[in-house]
Amino acid sequence: MGKVYLVGAGPGEAELVTFKALRLIQEADCIVYDFLVPKGLLKHARKGAELIYVGKKAAAHTVPQEEINELLLRKAREGKVVVRLKGGDPFLFGRGGEEALFLSENGVDFEIVPGVSSAIAVPAYAGVPLTHRNYASTVAFVTGREDAKRKTSRIDWQALSRIDTLVFLMGVGNLPEIRRRLIEGGKEPSTKACVIEWGTLPEQRVVEGALSEIDKRAEEAGIGPPAVLVVGETVGLRGRLAWFEKKALFGKRIVVTRPQGQDEEMTRLLEREGARVLHLPTIMIEPIEPNEDLERALREISSFFGIVLTSVNAAGLFLEALLRSDVDIRELFGL
Amino acid sequence: MGKVYLVGAGPGEAELVTFKALRLIQEADCIVYDFLVPKGLLKHARKGAELIYVGKKAAAHTVPQEEINELLLRKAREGKVVVRLKGGDPFLFGRGGEEALFLSENGVDFEIVPGVSSAIAVPAYAGVPLTHRNYASTVAFVTGREDAKRKTSRIDWQALSRIDTLVFLMGVGNLPEIRRRLIEGGKEPSTKACVIEWGTLPEQRVVEGALSEIDKRAEEAGIGPPAVLVVGETVGLRGRLAWFEKKALFGKRIVVTRPQGQDEEMTRLLEREGARVLHLPTIMIEPIEPNEDLERALREISSFFGIVLTSVNAAGLFLEALLRSDVDIRELFGL
Repeated sequence: MGKVYLVGAGPGEAELVTFKALRLIQEADCIVYDFLVPKGLLKHARKGAELIYVGKKAAAHTVPQEEINELLLRKAREGKVVVRLKGGDPFLFGRGGEEALFLSENGVDFEIVPGVSSAIAVPAYAGVPLTHRNYASTVAFVTGREDAKRKTSRIDWQALSRIDTLVFLMGVGNLPEIRRRLIEGGKEPSTKACVIEWGTLPEQRVVEGALSEIDKRAEEAGIGPPAVLVVGETVGLRGRLAWFEKKALFGKRIVVTRPQGQDEEMTRLLEREGARVLHLPTIMIEPIEPNEDLERALREISSFFGIVLTSVNAAGLFLEALLRSDVDIRELFGL
Repeated sequence: MGKVYLVGAGPGEAELVTFKALRLIQEADCIVYDFLVPKGLLKHARKGAELIYVGKKAAAHTVPQEEINELLLRKAREGKVVVRLKGGDPFLFGRGGEEALFLSENGVDFEIVPGVSSAIAVPAYAGVPLTHRNYASTVAFVTGREDAKRKTSRIDWQALSRIDTLVFLMGVGNLPEIRRRLIEGGKEPSTKACVIEWGTLPEQRVVEGALSEIDKRAEEAGIGPPAVLVVGETVGLRGRLAWFEKKALFGKRIVVTRPQGQDEEMTRLLEREGARVLHLPTIMIEPIEPNEDLERALREISSFFGIVLTSVNAAGLFLEALLRSDVDIRELFGL
């Protein structure tokens, strides 16, 4: 019997993943992942690992929850180490509880690996603290995805209306309904609110307004999923705290033309300043294969007077060829 | 002018720190850190970095918030890259909002680096999902540290009582007060509750009970800070989901006697199974300094027929001495 790890992949920004999540991605035999898992994480999977996409995108459930459960069970029974990778955190509106219960009932060993939740990180990147001694002592997280057609909401809107800060996840499709229910529940229509689209990423967009008009504002701006709605007085601190959007390259799309494998440093520096980097290598550096001249030279290396390596790439390729050959590296003695 | 990073260090388990947090710890000129920052994180600070402890421990505020603010400002004005390292997440009861506002008002550049919040991770390690389609649609986070002597609470206890899942941070000193106010507010006395001490760490202890008796149970068990209180029906899932406490070595304290610098692999394997590892190296491996015999041998290395290295340590020390000497490594040719 294998083992299933229910792993939070963080809110989107690649560096906000935990060491535990990355280690498990590297070790897994099989990774079952969602729509909002940060791009680039999966490339750390080991060669030969099975990658299965069960993405959900707002209303369109690509794979029903029951099938995901069965898939996890089947892979575990095959003896696999399975990573169930979810955006954000698995136990906060991540259906992780349901998956864990199913695994437990079927005798499958599992672990929960918490992640940085979008519910916390996305407001932070928009400059909105969830709590503040003078403005907010309580904060509630709510799924925005409750079926709007339901006559009786499972959610106690009156109680919610009296909590200082409210964070709605996945609620962009239900904004008019959420606005209506909150105001009916007693929330002041003038309460500050904002909707954050693609939070923590260079594409982040924020729309602000009073609760009474936030759905209209979001619609005018064309906000779509993924988006987080925050309602509460701390939204008003955003004017002074919106650090991410103030970055020098925030929102800029920058093309890096360096060859693949040599663009990491540049990419990292640009991303730190808020840019979205597009990779368009204009040259490709490849070894000449087979390279009989080089092989002959290596065989006679001790007869040479010196070696001139004209670039970092040449040095790397020379060393590779040397290590692949039968020549003892110590024969370079004297060169 | 320098820059201040308000960084979440995660809930305690070392592997639950983010890559961003660790990178900033490695780059910082100055790290200002709290009581609950995971042990071992600070050893990644670069040599010469200034480490300043401003720890708070429950009621005992070692350094007042105003002084911490001034400290951050002073260090930034010295041109330093400052990491303000907090347990959990800086924007969820972490006073990060206050610090960020102060920095903003004083023209200091800052960034927020969200972390895995204890409010989410600690229940997860106790096997308590915060939400579940059948049991909980709303979850609220509350500071448990509100002054109990205050006549009028800032917290709307009636509203809270109607939220499905409640998580109280830092509330262990106020458990009787929290229990009383919640029940007065309308929460059923029989609602399931648990207190989790040292969550995510091998020392984790969990006490369960009905809300009406949870404070007494915790007192009997001698629960102290840091502890998280969870109130809600999903606590009842713990019996089936408490994966962490079921680990083979959970709660065991294991002494590793390998020499320092050679105990990582063993430590990692033990910790993965839930053990607390104590380091008690019984031997220490040190180079002989100065080692005239070795130096002489190195000078005459080309006259040798072979070298016999009898251990990993010998190989390491030999190579170190070789690289430190004037001898060209290529002189080993033929050996």
